[in-house]
Amino acid sequence: MNDADVIETSARAEPGEVGLVEAHDFVSSEPFVFESGQSLPGFTLRYETYGHLNHARDNAVLICHALSGDHHCAGIHALTDRKPGWWNNLIGPGKAVDTNRFFVICSNTLGGCQGSTGPSSINPTTGEPFGIAFPFVTVRDMVRAQKRLMDHLGLSSLYCVIGGSMGGMQVLQWGIEYPEFVKRMLAMATTARESAQGIGFNEVGRQAIMQDPLWNKGEYPKNGGPRVGLAIARMMAHITYVSDASMSKKFGRRQVGQTTPVDPAKATDPTKYPKSYTFDVQFEVESYLRYQGESFINRFDANSYLYITRAIDHFDLTSAYGSLEQAFSPVQATTLVVGFTSDWLFPPEQNRQIALALLRAGKRASYAELNTDLGHDSFLLESEELYGVIRGFLAT
Amino acid sequence: MNDADVIETSARAEPGEVGLVEAHDFVSSEPFVFESGQSLPGFTLRYETYGHLNHARDNAVLICHALSGDHHCAGIHALTDRKPGWWNNLIGPGKAVDTNRFFVICSNTLGGCQGSTGPSSINPTTGEPFGIAFPFVTVRDMVRAQKRLMDHLGLSSLYCVIGGSMGGMQVLQWGIEYPEFVKRMLAMATTARESAQGIGFNEVGRQAIMQDPLWNKGEYPKNGGPRVGLAIARMMAHITYVSDASMSKKFGRRQVGQTTPVDPAKATDPTKYPKSYTFDVQFEVESYLRYQGESFINRFDANSYLYITRAIDHFDLTSAYGSLEQAFSPVQATTLVVGFTSDWLFPPEQNRQIALALLRAGKRASYAELNTDLGHDSFLLESEELYGVIRGFLAT
Repeated sequence: MNDADVIETSARAEPGEVGLVEAHDFVSSEPFVFESGQSLPGFTLRYETYGHLNHARDNAVLICHALSGDHHCAGIHALTDRKPGWWNNLIGPGKAVDTNRFFVICSNTLGGCQGSTGPSSINPTTGEPFGIAFPFVTVRDMVRAQKRLMDHLGLSSLYCVIGGSMGGMQVLQWGIEYPEFVKRMLAMATTARESAQGIGFNEVGRQAIMQDPLWNKGEYPKNGGPRVGLAIARMMAHITYVSDASMSKKFGRRQVGQTTPVDPAKATDPTKYPKSYTFDVQFEVESYLRYQGESFINRFDANSYLYITRAIDHFDLTSAYGSLEQAFSPVQATTLVVGFTSDWLFPPEQNRQIALALLRAGKRASYAELNTDLGHDSFLLESEELYGVIRGFLAT
Repeated sequence: MNDADVIETSARAEPGEVGLVEAHDFVSSEPFVFESGQSLPGFTLRYETYGHLNHARDNAVLICHALSGDHHCAGIHALTDRKPGWWNNLIGPGKAVDTNRFFVICSNTLGGCQGSTGPSSINPTTGEPFGIAFPFVTVRDMVRAQKRLMDHLGLSSLYCVIGGSMGGMQVLQWGIEYPEFVKRMLAMATTARESAQGIGFNEVGRQAIMQDPLWNKGEYPKNGGPRVGLAIARMMAHITYVSDASMSKKFGRRQVGQTTPVDPAKATDPTKYPKSYTFDVQFEVESYLRYQGESFINRFDANSYLYITRAIDHFDLTSAYGSLEQAFSPVQATTLVVGFTSDWLFPPEQNRQIALALLRAGKRASYAELNTDLGHDSFLLESEELYGVIRGFLAT
């Protein structure tokens, strides 16, 4: 473990925690041809790693993030950080994805906006951000770009690729595209084929962004742009990530401040109608969703949102390969698919179909359905049951 | 039936069809005090009727419309009309709500924008539209205003009150508010208590409207205003009215025109990225949702959308009366509640709870759950099973 080749990435961690981590930039200077036929002279992927690569270089676990995620999935960047990485509950010494055992990698996706090359990056030919002149990105492009990072890190295989939601789509694409490289796939709360309803929600979000006058056909300054449209897109999307049950449990119908929809002082005087009062925040759930929208615009680029939702819309292994069984025919990995009963964005049945198609294609696959009430975001849940399933799968 | 007192409303109908109908305006010149304490010197309700009131005046059926509905629920206004009223499949001679037998009434709700007094009406004290100076409206206010119309029509009872979604909320409120007047309640795809998720979706729609610069705090010209925001609100809401299954069946992943996300002519030349092409309509479901949004803005007022969604948010019989059983304690009507398996906006369970609470309160109530895949809008479905249930209930 003291070999010079071993990549040291995390500072000494507190027991159970990854601790302080740093992000790195991988710059690929080889031209990259997108599935669309468009190309870039090169690209950058921002990434983090936790734990240590072993001598055999066979203990690497790749984490793939979802639409609004990033490369920072565990640990903290500074002792003053209010929150650790987004999957910190899962990843760490002694945790389900045990960094004492695994070398864990997570990169911001191509087309993203957290350091990797995407529409907010500078277009070398114009000196301005690409905007919507950025090439069309697919889930397969995301995976092919990640593969260059794996090569750069000197890996010859991945012990496991793990992801939920769009991360799960990348997991499946990894197993298909690089069958000899991927030993295990763990896909959660995902689908092999984006549904009409999913495309519909994505399109409403895109319209909210593109109809915002400040979108300006994708040309806007770094800290400007369609912030209102992006916030609305996020508010709506957030509802699809949770469930009626979890929102009822968390907020119910609790109200904020006043309990009547009309200012009592004005109600008795019919000439003084309460301007706007009625449409201010009244319920806690409204306040929460507005907060979700407002905090999102400070960390996400609207054009990236357009590109990544489009990549999700176009994810359809069935039509890309003729059938799901044909899509999975090259797969060599052992696969676990996890669905969640309350996920109505990528319902359990869509997850189960992935495992069934793998089995029909003669692959090693199983399906676990967990009874949760958090909705789609259940894959991020602090759940001993989920940890147990993942731990067991990684031990095989 | 030729008695002078009998209200003649429809021209001679084709067998099975209501045929040509006319809307009427009922003007109430008595002051109306809203639940909020605010008041108006009077109001107008636009309404239609089909069939004839009998001598005993005991065959009246009131139809209550949903958020985006109106008073025109059956027949046509002109022979050139492309579509009949929104519940024409249910209402007509020999249909489940048989106009040979019943005198059917439907009015545009108070706060609406299809002829009844609402935020787009002229405020007599300013000579300008009320905008958001219009009083806060509740479902109970809607029902109390409708009651004046019933009195005006000379009714002493309602054989049945029927409605789906927000119409179903009005049905329940009718039975509670005017127990001796209402003989039967038929509530479909509804709830006794708007959920956090429902409030959340309503709030996203309101934000889309209110953040549109043309909303201008509710002050906009008659054919202007936040058309973009209203269209986005409608696109999103439409997804919640249907289901993943019905959208998959209707559109699946079918694409419009080109089948690749990038213009092939431009793909090969990396200096010519396809501006905006990627974010044009690509899937049929997108085209459909955009159409839903665009057609809605030509028939609906954005401020009415704010008011009516707020009325829905605040509908909560449990908290208004202490408990659902207490809410229903005055009810004298016989009630049928119909839920639909695929309705995820007002799921079957919320409908079943209404019937259970009525039973616990010692009332005559039953619950029918129909297996459909259209989602919330199933109450509008052309379904012999639904017609049969309604016909049977109205025969009791």
